[in-house]
Amino acid sequence: MARSAQRRSGGRKHKLAQRAQAPANPSPPGQRGGQYAPLSPSDMQAIYHGALRLLADLGLGEAPPRLTADLLAAGAEDRGDGRIRFPAALVEDAIAGAARRFVLHGRDPARSIEVGGQAVHFGTGGAAVQTLDLESGRYRPSTLADLHDFTRLQDCLENVSWFTRCCVATDVDCSLELDINTAYALIRNTTKPVATSFTLSDHVGPVVAMLDIAAGGEGAFARRPFLKAHISPIISPMRFGADAVDVVYECIAHNIPMSCITAAQSGATAPATLAGFLTQSLAETLASLVMVHAIRPGHPMIFSNWPLVIDLRTGAFAGGGGEIAVMNAASAQISNWLGLPSGVAAAMTDAKAIDAQYGVEKGLTALAAGLAGGNLIYESSGMTASLLGASFEAFVLDNDMHAAIYRILRGIEVTEEAIGLESIHAAVLGEGHFLGSAQTYAAMERDYTYPTLADRDPPATWHGKGAPDIWTVARDRARAILKRHHPAYLTTAQDAQIRARFPVRPSR
Amino acid sequence: MARSAQRRSGGRKHKLAQRAQAPANPSPPGQRGGQYAPLSPSDMQAIYHGALRLLADLGLGEAPPRLTADLLAAGAEDRGDGRIRFPAALVEDAIAGAARRFVLHGRDPARSIEVGGQAVHFGTGGAAVQTLDLESGRYRPSTLADLHDFTRLQDCLENVSWFTRCCVATDVDCSLELDINTAYALIRNTTKPVATSFTLSDHVGPVVAMLDIAAGGEGAFARRPFLKAHISPIISPMRFGADAVDVVYECIAHNIPMSCITAAQSGATAPATLAGFLTQSLAETLASLVMVHAIRPGHPMIFSNWPLVIDLRTGAFAGGGGEIAVMNAASAQISNWLGLPSGVAAAMTDAKAIDAQYGVEKGLTALAAGLAGGNLIYESSGMTASLLGASFEAFVLDNDMHAAIYRILRGIEVTEEAIGLESIHAAVLGEGHFLGSAQTYAAMERDYTYPTLADRDPPATWHGKGAPDIWTVARDRARAILKRHHPAYLTTAQDAQIRARFPVRPSR
Repeated sequence: MARSAQRRSGGRKHKLAQRAQAPANPSPPGQRGGQYAPLSPSDMQAIYHGALRLLADLGLGEAPPRLTADLLAAGAEDRGDGRIRFPAALVEDAIAGAARRFVLHGRDPARSIEVGGQAVHFGTGGAAVQTLDLESGRYRPSTLADLHDFTRLQDCLENVSWFTRCCVATDVDCSLELDINTAYALIRNTTKPVATSFTLSDHVGPVVAMLDIAAGGEGAFARRPFLKAHISPIISPMRFGADAVDVVYECIAHNIPMSCITAAQSGATAPATLAGFLTQSLAETLASLVMVHAIRPGHPMIFSNWPLVIDLRTGAFAGGGGEIAVMNAASAQISNWLGLPSGVAAAMTDAKAIDAQYGVEKGLTALAAGLAGGNLIYESSGMTASLLGASFEAFVLDNDMHAAIYRILRGIEVTEEAIGLESIHAAVLGEGHFLGSAQTYAAMERDYTYPTLADRDPPATWHGKGAPDIWTVARDRARAILKRHHPAYLTTAQDAQIRARFPVRPSR
Repeated sequence: MARSAQRRSGGRKHKLAQRAQAPANPSPPGQRGGQYAPLSPSDMQAIYHGALRLLADLGLGEAPPRLTADLLAAGAEDRGDGRIRFPAALVEDAIAGAARRFVLHGRDPARSIEVGGQAVHFGTGGAAVQTLDLESGRYRPSTLADLHDFTRLQDCLENVSWFTRCCVATDVDCSLELDINTAYALIRNTTKPVATSFTLSDHVGPVVAMLDIAAGGEGAFARRPFLKAHISPIISPMRFGADAVDVVYECIAHNIPMSCITAAQSGATAPATLAGFLTQSLAETLASLVMVHAIRPGHPMIFSNWPLVIDLRTGAFAGGGGEIAVMNAASAQISNWLGLPSGVAAAMTDAKAIDAQYGVEKGLTALAAGLAGGNLIYESSGMTASLLGASFEAFVLDNDMHAAIYRILRGIEVTEEAIGLESIHAAVLGEGHFLGSAQTYAAMERDYTYPTLADRDPPATWHGKGAPDIWTVARDRARAILKRHHPAYLTTAQDAQIRARFPVRPSR
């Protein structure tokens, strides 16, 4: 037998074996949301028109000179009072010209995702400075080794659609080295779409040079960019941040898609009234869109309007309450209504322990965001402690949670065949039950999502296993994956080339 | 000062003191749902017309003779094959004549709730045979003492709108004594609307005689019934249960409102396809409604269509998955669309531990049911272990979870004042933030729900407290309430009268 035939045969056998082990996911990422509408059409109109008025009447402060020139050329107004105003027609031009649907490329094309419409994807977005240690169960500063570990862990988790570096390597003190080593950890350990931040605009070029090596040569990254940048060009309330705007220019120059994130905080940098908050926050995210439109119309930008909530008793950010759930859902609804690719935030529990608080807060906020149709739902995997923490156990647990949410989003297929009146007649007049029928078996494979971690045993069985908490079960799962999965998505040659040119640090 | 004036003054002072301690709940029970629509209008039509066809073509088996006579008199058909068929016109008459909105009375009128429309209330519904012991953290058989304890615990929990006995006193072996002692535990320990089951129809009369004593005399209960009955008159698939039908007749005779519960199980007693399940289950619950219509048109009945899911890998009931969330949400949507008071089930976690699985499963299923507008959401407080268990810790935790869900349901008030463009101008052009403004303080009190148990501290503070899991925090809270709250809602005379006539057992 020729070698190629052997390989084909082995490939086929391998695929069949895989299918036998794991049936097709009945509700994969990308399910459609939008079944939940927190705002009425007139509510959305009122908020949108309020945002237009803020942009036209109040405008944005502190626009850097280069951006001011570009904005004025696009139709903005400068009355000489330090604020640049955006007439409604300019904002509407920016919306009409925006990239409405685009692909976030994975280095592996099979892992690319399309953003836009009502498709929902859960992923990450955090910058946790602390990591919940797998061994001690306590928090400690996040390290570069943690980032490598988180990246390869999520590489095995189907319901993390893209991976933004979830923690900050606090053991890398030089900000250029931090940005380089962060990007290196991403490309070494996963082929999904990835994302990161750039501390300064000067860092974009070197990082892209490294990405080019992974992509196959100079200019290869820009032709099919598999990394997007998280940037907050607006400082709430209603002014530009100069450093972030510089990063925006550099990212656009290198064809890097961007998540322009508005992260205002209720009662601090935005109104405490929910409607006032959404109006200002929408105006600010629209200001980012106008900025992109003025620089390069149609450059891919995720319209990332993340309403954050302050616990007004303490002044601290709190990610787990009902207000943040309904505001992020409303944000997704408005962005989708404007036809813009929506980015919102969910599952930002305030719990430190992997406990019932963790579960309730993640469940409520992630489901609300998903049902509202958030296209990219950031922060939704692995984050704890009001975004201060990241956790390995959380990653594997959230993966199962998102499977259940995707199942809810998939909804109920109502067809004559699915209703199956004749099958009901047959069962009622026949054996009096539906157990073991062909229809039941088929539905079991096609329509039901089975959790991989949840305990569905009766109490006596649970006692017999030592009455485990799912935190323990998740810890074991995370350890097993980390022990097993050591991907090396760079070739030896690529890795050597990168190490020769960049200060890549050991991952342990 | 006259005594009455003193009392009035004391009452006023007392009320002011209460208000100072606890600001008005910004989102109390009874918030409106319906923002989430899992089914399209044509999906609902298809399921409804499928259900009508099942009722007209297949009909119901095993109708007892008395019921058969009443059904035929109302317009049902008997073709002599042992099945009673309901023409569509009869079903539509039953829907048109049904009680669409009614009050579930609390013995304390201030605790009554109105059922119907899109108003959402969370409550209980379980019959747990095991209780998660507060001291050992393990499950053991539920006792009468547990039922007294659960009843007085929930009496302090604002977000349990009504209390169905959540556990079965397995230490009471005589079924009449069980029904009597269960009802006694309810009326002794709470003045909320309550609910129970009757093992046999013969038990209804004695229990009502006891309730009459609590209500102030013979016939007093029936004039203002504060207890409803949970009954499952239909045995899935598509037949009547004779004992339950007898209980229905007796409850109607005593003017007891009823929850007629369909609790079919996917792939066992109903189709595994979700649309087929909903069609059969709707037909069965409509059969209950036709039954009530045939006996006494307009008698208050909660249209309790609870789709339950079997884990088809094991054949065991599983309450925590995505399928059960979307099916109960769809059930609420259909019932509300028909204008019937909807009863669904949620928060039936499969977890035994009070852990992250518990939280995620409760959060997802309870929010889905609430957003869909379930009028009475059963099983949503205190239940664990796939309805096999009840837990004191769960009761206090679920109370906070429901507060967050009610906050989400309340939504976002979009008015010119709430948008507050002028306040935004003032903050941006003034101090550059919103901290400490009058608008911020007002919103903080009016619009935000603060959890009473959730930990929002940073990791270092949490470490300093000993890194507690919220299970521990909830245990302490439950213990404190049980130590403090010993209500005696029966007068000494009522209690003595009841004990003289009924075999009331000690509560400890």
